[in-house]
Amino acid sequence: MPLSRGSSSSPPSSRQLDLVALSLTPFGWRRSLGDELRKGDAPGWILDRLLGRRPAQPGIDRPTLMSRAAAALARASDRGLHLITWDDASYPAALMSIADPPPVLWARGNVDALTPRAVAIVGSRAGSPYALAVAERLAADLSARGIVIISGLARGVDSAAHRGAVAAKGATLAVLGSGADVIYPAEHRDLAREIETDGAVVSELVPGTPPQKQFFPLRNRIISGLSRAVLIVEAGEKSGSLITARCALEQGRDVLAVPGNVLAGRNRGGHALLKDGAKIVESADDILEELGLPSHRTRRANEPEDPVLAGLPAGEPCNLDVIAERTGLTSARLLPRLFELELAGLIRRVGGGRFTRI
Amino acid sequence: MPLSRGSSSSPPSSRQLDLVALSLTPFGWRRSLGDELRKGDAPGWILDRLLGRRPAQPGIDRPTLMSRAAAALARASDRGLHLITWDDASYPAALMSIADPPPVLWARGNVDALTPRAVAIVGSRAGSPYALAVAERLAADLSARGIVIISGLARGVDSAAHRGAVAAKGATLAVLGSGADVIYPAEHRDLAREIETDGAVVSELVPGTPPQKQFFPLRNRIISGLSRAVLIVEAGEKSGSLITARCALEQGRDVLAVPGNVLAGRNRGGHALLKDGAKIVESADDILEELGLPSHRTRRANEPEDPVLAGLPAGEPCNLDVIAERTGLTSARLLPRLFELELAGLIRRVGGGRFTRI
Repeated sequence: MPLSRGSSSSPPSSRQLDLVALSLTPFGWRRSLGDELRKGDAPGWILDRLLGRRPAQPGIDRPTLMSRAAAALARASDRGLHLITWDDASYPAALMSIADPPPVLWARGNVDALTPRAVAIVGSRAGSPYALAVAERLAADLSARGIVIISGLARGVDSAAHRGAVAAKGATLAVLGSGADVIYPAEHRDLAREIETDGAVVSELVPGTPPQKQFFPLRNRIISGLSRAVLIVEAGEKSGSLITARCALEQGRDVLAVPGNVLAGRNRGGHALLKDGAKIVESADDILEELGLPSHRTRRANEPEDPVLAGLPAGEPCNLDVIAERTGLTSARLLPRLFELELAGLIRRVGGGRFTRI
Repeated sequence: MPLSRGSSSSPPSSRQLDLVALSLTPFGWRRSLGDELRKGDAPGWILDRLLGRRPAQPGIDRPTLMSRAAAALARASDRGLHLITWDDASYPAALMSIADPPPVLWARGNVDALTPRAVAIVGSRAGSPYALAVAERLAADLSARGIVIISGLARGVDSAAHRGAVAAKGATLAVLGSGADVIYPAEHRDLAREIETDGAVVSELVPGTPPQKQFFPLRNRIISGLSRAVLIVEAGEKSGSLITARCALEQGRDVLAVPGNVLAGRNRGGHALLKDGAKIVESADDILEELGLPSHRTRRANEPEDPVLAGLPAGEPCNLDVIAERTGLTSARLLPRLFELELAGLIRRVGGGRFTRI
């Protein structure tokens, strides 16, 4: 299995080892680490400087970190995990800009799914049937439009979002609060395998890291950091997904929320975001429009731009030859497009093999 | 029964007759009628001018209108309806300012309920159990805070709002699209009687007017006109309550909406209002705050105004005698209040029977 993307089985470089060692330094160092990485200094040099600047801590010294880094790389190779380091071409640019970027990411699956066309869908672990249905539907609808769905593989809304993407044959990223080879909760192991087909399971934690409470809020900044927008589906007042929303705001990402029942208190967190200016989302189109991406609605508004439609003035039924001549398209290319427009309810067939605009 | 508020059984004045006659002119004249009334011209003179300015219409002439006005007044007296004319002291000031004010209102019940502390709650006639529960609860909670609930006596959300107010022993106004003595739908006759105990059934249409389709959108401008804010509870894309919301916006009233399920399309109208900037409402407190009225939450924020707290400067623990002296309250009145403040986490006991501000 490839260890680093593109360099199948080459031994780890010292830069890679240094960056993994940097990822093993305390989380409290992440912001200054991010500043140093953005300056472009060599990872080994940053490591020495960070270590030298702070009082000695047990286990936080160069030899220990380097040996743990080497062990992590060996385990990753063994478990078929990809390593994506800060200076790798495939390290997501979106993540580079956050205040506390991870020096490395570990991923299992298809690392091409780390694209900027990504939206996070997060929410209650104890999601209501309504919340699960909404998360699954929106994830499927966005997936069908080529958006990568990012979530945290948690019970409830998170896993519903992943399932929606998988069902729509879309790519989805599960960002874990444990090593990318430690699936938690265990009941989501099969889901993780399905995710890895087109998407990936991702973590900044070295392989083998068990899930720990303090990792989950930190993981949330990566969920939002990788996303253009974070959609909250059913968050109570103390839902962890509100941490993801706060990270998103800090990172300048859009925060969106699906409204719901006001009686049970299940949506108090999400509604509070809406009161504070988060965008209200009912459909995938709402999200696409918020991101400035073409939606069904905007596409409809833009229709005069479509060359086939432009070749079909309203009230003037035309046959295939006329449309072909006007558009410069061959019948072979024209027919599937006409079929699409017909399905979309924009044109219809009239007698004599002619089409007319509706 | 009193015909005009305050003037129990006196015969109608010619001004009253003129104003009722004005209310019988076509609805299309309402805006110019409003302008003329606001100028302070005599109703009889306005009537002559409006009639003179327009081509003759069958039935729209002075003798016919005056005789219909007299008949309406007779019927009102018979049916126990109050007449509130434009120049009556109890004519609601809020309604005077709208573009198309009714020259008169007919009311059955307690006309004191026509106060400016009023909020409209309107929504789907086919309200879901959720919508009915929300409307009823918010109406009850607002009623308990002295707010008059205004709605349209329709099936669904409207009647749930009235019921909530009645259950909380609050005043509620039902504004009809028929005469105030013609209860529609008939199944709400008992509810109308209950409303009339503390509130009133109101209409601009002369007594005996049967419900007609075109009256309902016109009635909606009165619902919003009488209200400081209009709350939409579950409105689909074509709900009549959206007309009330549009009237409210035109009249400069706040528009509020309760969010709900995004899957069934039931809330598409309400959610569209939220997308356009309507305030999201989860509780009565949200509404009170929007109106600048004290809510449970603002009351907490305002506590520094509390005389007991004011007598307890931060960082200066005081004993009971000192606080009693500063506030002028006896220990008997002070102790329960100190206990409340302690429970609210605003003060705490320190040694020696003293209290300190947190």
